[in-house]
Amino acid sequence: MAAAPVWSVDPRTGKQREQVAAQATPQAVDAAVRAAHDARTALADRTARIAFLRAAARTLDEAVAAVVETADAETALGTARLTGELARTTYQLRAFADLVEEGGYLDIRIDHADPALTPPRPELRRYKVPLGVVAVYAASNFPLAFSVPGGDTASALAAGCPVVVKAHPDHPATSELCGALLRRAAVEAGLPEDVVTVVHGFDAGLELIRHPLVTAAGFTGSIRGGRALFDAAAARPVPIPFHGELGSLNPVVVTAAAAAERAEEIGAGLAGAMTLGVGQFCVKPGLVLVPEGPDGDRVAEALAKSVAGTAPGVLLDLRMRDNFLAGVRERVALPGVTAPVAPGAGADAPAESGADADVGARAGGGSGELTVGAGFLSVPARHLTEPEGPYGLLLEECFGPVTVLARYAGQDEAAAVLGRLPGNLSATLQLSDAEAAGAAGPAAELIAQAASLAGRVLVNGWPTGVAVAPAQHHGGPYPAATSHSTSVGGTAIERWLRPVAYQSVPDGLLPAELREGNPLGLPRRVDGSPANA
Amino acid sequence: MAAAPVWSVDPRTGKQREQVAAQATPQAVDAAVRAAHDARTALADRTARIAFLRAAARTLDEAVAAVVETADAETALGTARLTGELARTTYQLRAFADLVEEGGYLDIRIDHADPALTPPRPELRRYKVPLGVVAVYAASNFPLAFSVPGGDTASALAAGCPVVVKAHPDHPATSELCGALLRRAAVEAGLPEDVVTVVHGFDAGLELIRHPLVTAAGFTGSIRGGRALFDAAAARPVPIPFHGELGSLNPVVVTAAAAAERAEEIGAGLAGAMTLGVGQFCVKPGLVLVPEGPDGDRVAEALAKSVAGTAPGVLLDLRMRDNFLAGVRERVALPGVTAPVAPGAGADAPAESGADADVGARAGGGSGELTVGAGFLSVPARHLTEPEGPYGLLLEECFGPVTVLARYAGQDEAAAVLGRLPGNLSATLQLSDAEAAGAAGPAAELIAQAASLAGRVLVNGWPTGVAVAPAQHHGGPYPAATSHSTSVGGTAIERWLRPVAYQSVPDGLLPAELREGNPLGLPRRVDGSPANA
Repeated sequence: MAAAPVWSVDPRTGKQREQVAAQATPQAVDAAVRAAHDARTALADRTARIAFLRAAARTLDEAVAAVVETADAETALGTARLTGELARTTYQLRAFADLVEEGGYLDIRIDHADPALTPPRPELRRYKVPLGVVAVYAASNFPLAFSVPGGDTASALAAGCPVVVKAHPDHPATSELCGALLRRAAVEAGLPEDVVTVVHGFDAGLELIRHPLVTAAGFTGSIRGGRALFDAAAARPVPIPFHGELGSLNPVVVTAAAAAERAEEIGAGLAGAMTLGVGQFCVKPGLVLVPEGPDGDRVAEALAKSVAGTAPGVLLDLRMRDNFLAGVRERVALPGVTAPVAPGAGADAPAESGADADVGARAGGGSGELTVGAGFLSVPARHLTEPEGPYGLLLEECFGPVTVLARYAGQDEAAAVLGRLPGNLSATLQLSDAEAAGAAGPAAELIAQAASLAGRVLVNGWPTGVAVAPAQHHGGPYPAATSHSTSVGGTAIERWLRPVAYQSVPDGLLPAELREGNPLGLPRRVDGSPANA
Repeated sequence: MAAAPVWSVDPRTGKQREQVAAQATPQAVDAAVRAAHDARTALADRTARIAFLRAAARTLDEAVAAVVETADAETALGTARLTGELARTTYQLRAFADLVEEGGYLDIRIDHADPALTPPRPELRRYKVPLGVVAVYAASNFPLAFSVPGGDTASALAAGCPVVVKAHPDHPATSELCGALLRRAAVEAGLPEDVVTVVHGFDAGLELIRHPLVTAAGFTGSIRGGRALFDAAAARPVPIPFHGELGSLNPVVVTAAAAAERAEEIGAGLAGAMTLGVGQFCVKPGLVLVPEGPDGDRVAEALAKSVAGTAPGVLLDLRMRDNFLAGVRERVALPGVTAPVAPGAGADAPAESGADADVGARAGGGSGELTVGAGFLSVPARHLTEPEGPYGLLLEECFGPVTVLARYAGQDEAAAVLGRLPGNLSATLQLSDAEAAGAAGPAAELIAQAASLAGRVLVNGWPTGVAVAPAQHHGGPYPAATSHSTSVGGTAIERWLRPVAYQSVPDGLLPAELREGNPLGLPRRVDGSPANA
């Protein structure tokens, strides 16, 4: 039986662009994993790995025109955004090269023998080694930064783990192109090209998570898909870590004093954050606690004005578009929920894509593009404090350009809503100048509550920028993430390593990283304290 | 319905000593978890926590006579061993106090804002916060060091996580006594006593792992029990990390040159390691690769001599004794397996305990103690390279004073056996002087193979001492452990923490640990590099 074709689709029209690959058969997945496994010894060479990461960045940068054109054709994210996303992606590859060079990630700890202790302590030398082949599941919404050449791949390669990427069906051509560029860079750095392989297909993703030689997985996507893979990873005869970023509401609290002070600025800022990338960011603010009363009204009015002025956009695929339209409909139907600016199908676009139809042809006499318009809903916050009932739906992520304002009567009600939230990637506070200065108000308690429910806490900013930086944390309590690790930032490398301790191993038999003379000049903790290299 | 009683049993006779507690009802487990959850805010105070850990160590040390007497009465591990184990336990509590004081475990990373970057980088400040209530499942074989006051409890408390311990049924009186001492120490340090609670009963253990307020678990025990709890932790609506130490063969390779050089020393050392604690150590060497031929024969003879001279010992409980005797019988029955010194029931002791009988009364006219004698088996290593068939049994841990010598024909055969092993806590190489000096032989390859299958690699030592030290790693690939963390050593604290990043949060609203002026004098990485406090 011939393998099923993989098509690149134009989300603006719903039409197939080209056939770019075939869905990977079980045999193909097995071959990819085995080839990756065989490449691990070569990738263990730190110097070659550093060269590879830098060559990958350069190769991708040089191909910017082709990469951006291909990605735009199958995601409709636009040239400006995709050019920026590629720059972020190659910056990330270089940042991991620097991090591997610095060597702190090896977490070297050396305890010298101490015969004076009872019992005498033997010599112990510990560092971290790569796990083995890593499976990466690419995201729909970041065809570069969270896909084939993205953070999971970059951090796994940096750790010394070969990668098999399961491409996202929304951008198979981009995935193939980026995969080829990474493989070319590997060869340039003297490594086998099989340190990275791209596979396609839903079944291939399942094969991958169950493969005995796969040692860990990274994932960015939906709660449903991520949980299914998490469960499969845990159910293996040998369970493996599954680092998934699944879903997040990214609550925002606007205090009464902040609304009084700068309602218009907050409303406009929120509009920018919730419509960025057509509302398809994992860190889109999806629930905004706004005080009742005139100041809160001004926030809503400013939001309405900005959102109404936002051009309709194209979502990543037709299924997402249908889900967005259905999700909005379901939420608007709840008693007490209003839609000051109704999100929905773009003015000239059809309301539904029609699952099997030639959708482009149904777009009628308008622009012909399958756009959606941004909007927002409003609901009394007290409904969200009800432990049972239909309003739980408003505490679930709705992917696309919509957010929910929950109008609260007082600080206790806002805290009660926060108390009902599941885990989040981010939690944002909009504070007044006096509150931010710590002079007054509920800021300290809000900060503590925000830290209890999210991996990143912001004050007077918006969560939609996730800086690639050593101190970044992009994760959070479930379902924001399935582990306590991060998928962005320097510590993302920790996901793909395990410690090994060497006891009383003669210096000449130790890995160079652990030798007494520190020939590689690495940072270490010696006898419990940091030691200079 | 009255809660079922929990009895302390004398394993020397199989007789009930006293009723020390009741099995915890679901309501009691819920109450314990809620009380622990409520105590977390008090425990977040680092200074109080440090005082508590030190008070706990002192309180336990002061009660050494009662603790050792109670533990010996229900484990038969002996006064000397238990006195040493308590010293290890209180050393560990103090070591974690020192580690919390030093503060490196917070893994603080600060990136200052950089407006020159594209896009501009906001200020990010990250550290680690405690997860919440931790469930600890105590081990049978270390009633102190891996039980109520043991490493899981000490590291969780050090992290700031209140603990509910599920006591092991082999030492409920010791568990109650230690729990009371820890709770007294908490009060002394100004903390609520509910930062530690002890519960009893199999069902209580299941309730605990499913409780919504439990955020992580630590476990030391069998593969079967550990995997069941791991599965329950993964299947929760909100999955939690389960750090289990399940089972390990702890392979030892004796090279031909090492056997030629010091066969007698190796045989005697192995006898000591495999009979320590009546063979009930997680790191007991359970499979020893010894060369065929006269030098290997001398290793076996020295082992036989030492083991035959070892006094019979009492196992921790009757079920273990039955399992040990059955496990040995099953292994000896394999074709080609010999028993140079047959392990079995002690000379004056009954062969089987009889599950429901008054066992003490059946011990007959001998010592009356339910002892077992140590021994070892021997098998051609080639049988262990067979991918199918009955010899897989020899690659499974057999708890108790027995080990298996696998006699290998050449280095390739030894490597093939190692290649079939599941994950291990330790792997040990016995090398000749020349090999240890790196001058000759297969040592480098053996070291690499050992590191691929174990969390700790030893040369010319024995794995049965697991030093409490910053660089220790007591874990390893599954089933040695269910995660990549350690249950002994400084980094054990990392299991109970998650990172939080603060973006653009004003200094006055930051946790003290993250403020620009570093008021607590903590070690940090600033803008990607280590900074002095």
